[in-house]
Amino acid sequence: MPDFQTWTTRILKRTESALEALLPPPSVAPERLHAAMRYAVLGGGKRVRPLLVHAAGEACAAQAAVLDCAACAVELIHAYSLVHDDMPCMDDDVLRRGKPTVHVQYDEATALLTGDALQTLAFHALSQPGLLSDPGVQLAMVHHLALATGSRGMAGGQAIDLASIGRQLERGELEFMHIHKTGALIRCAVMLGAHCGKPAAGDEFERLDRFGKLVGLLFQVVDDILDTEGDTATLGKTAGKDAAHDKPTYVSLLGLARSRAYAGELLDQALAEVAPLPASRRLTELARFVMHRRF
Amino acid sequence: MPDFQTWTTRILKRTESALEALLPPPSVAPERLHAAMRYAVLGGGKRVRPLLVHAAGEACAAQAAVLDCAACAVELIHAYSLVHDDMPCMDDDVLRRGKPTVHVQYDEATALLTGDALQTLAFHALSQPGLLSDPGVQLAMVHHLALATGSRGMAGGQAIDLASIGRQLERGELEFMHIHKTGALIRCAVMLGAHCGKPAAGDEFERLDRFGKLVGLLFQVVDDILDTEGDTATLGKTAGKDAAHDKPTYVSLLGLARSRAYAGELLDQALAEVAPLPASRRLTELARFVMHRRF
Repeated sequence: MPDFQTWTTRILKRTESALEALLPPPSVAPERLHAAMRYAVLGGGKRVRPLLVHAAGEACAAQAAVLDCAACAVELIHAYSLVHDDMPCMDDDVLRRGKPTVHVQYDEATALLTGDALQTLAFHALSQPGLLSDPGVQLAMVHHLALATGSRGMAGGQAIDLASIGRQLERGELEFMHIHKTGALIRCAVMLGAHCGKPAAGDEFERLDRFGKLVGLLFQVVDDILDTEGDTATLGKTAGKDAAHDKPTYVSLLGLARSRAYAGELLDQALAEVAPLPASRRLTELARFVMHRRF
Repeated sequence: MPDFQTWTTRILKRTESALEALLPPPSVAPERLHAAMRYAVLGGGKRVRPLLVHAAGEACAAQAAVLDCAACAVELIHAYSLVHDDMPCMDDDVLRRGKPTVHVQYDEATALLTGDALQTLAFHALSQPGLLSDPGVQLAMVHHLALATGSRGMAGGQAIDLASIGRQLERGELEFMHIHKTGALIRCAVMLGAHCGKPAAGDEFERLDRFGKLVGLLFQVVDDILDTEGDTATLGKTAGKDAAHDKPTYVSLLGLARSRAYAGELLDQALAEVAPLPASRRLTELARFVMHRRF
């Protein structure tokens, strides 16, 4: 079995190829929109969500080609949310993945349409006829992705985030926001990967779902720590922007030391959830990567 | 069989109820986003797309409850596109369906998220498990809606529209834009309605698809005529805004008389397509309504 680094490189490469193939070529009209969609998606990002889809899929003996499609769908939703989140009326950010944001590189109207069309492309990809032999399972996956993406998931989390600017949140409120804003899609990535594979045995799905929820929260706690500690060059996005925007974070609420301790607890709980599963090695390695990443 | 007015009133009422039930209540967090989503969707609009879903569905002996769901999905996509289209970076409009636009009534960030979440809700609604007894057909409907909505459909048409401001388009280019911007979703409404019913006999689907394409174009030609002739109070949106934005229209390209003649030709062709179908009365009435509407 290849080591984690080799595995990650392989998944990132196949994810990039799959995204490349899904995105309309820039030679097809409307050319500018298609160019902006490719700019927003290709050639950057940690691809944590695609890695989670594949890791969960491998734990459930799913086929890699099917996982590619689910991985792309989740990553396209993530990319759409970044494009809209960076716009002047939201976070007004100029740097993303080490490059100018879409509205800076193109214009605001194109950024708006790019995010819109990337969201649609995610549902187009996941609803591709014949992806799974059981269309009922595939339909459930589409439904699941929509729930995680919409007003009771990621978009809802962004609305709560907006409403929280300048307010001091309780810890419960902060957690509620992150469970929606970042957590819902990460958790969904794990479940989509699992659905691509064999039907669940025993409490396997429940364990994977709890793992996804814990890793989603872990991801955000570490993000808050990195936003405090990191520098813009390493992160590829503007460092310290949460504090600058007067946004509540785990660090502002708990301090750095307690935030780190909390991340450690979440990691331990996540690892415990998947420890009984037979093929959970990649999930374990990936949770550790989410904890110890520097960007 | 009830007359067209009675039928329309009944469909509008059940569409409103179905949308009401699908949209999260404003008491559920995030409250402001959910209130804005309801504001954008409920209590207004001609509901041409839901009417088309039901008319095509009745021609294919579909169940009304299933048609409600497809009608809501198409209308939610339409509503999302209006919210984003009205934003300052796009058409910058302040009036829609006789009310202040979402970014005026709320704020730009909320309008952005409202459009985003309405799009997602459309896919959530249409992927609802068990809507059709054949999940494969339902999956195909989701795929169809995504194609009509994305960069090779409606969103692509908006991008072409943006790029056309201040340019004099050829007639072929104008038609290409409208086939995407307005036509794709109207055509999709007809096909979704048909898919909700019994499998097609003979060339029924092809006829319905051509009908949808023709009515989509007819809708836009009439829209351009009304934008020239109408007044803001009757339209419920700003009249004359295409000319004000220096946007090409059928009227600016062909003049009013030839635009009217073209609309008449499109109507005749559309009626001819569905004339051989046994239960096409509502489709015929609806095409005539699209032609002769005053708003």
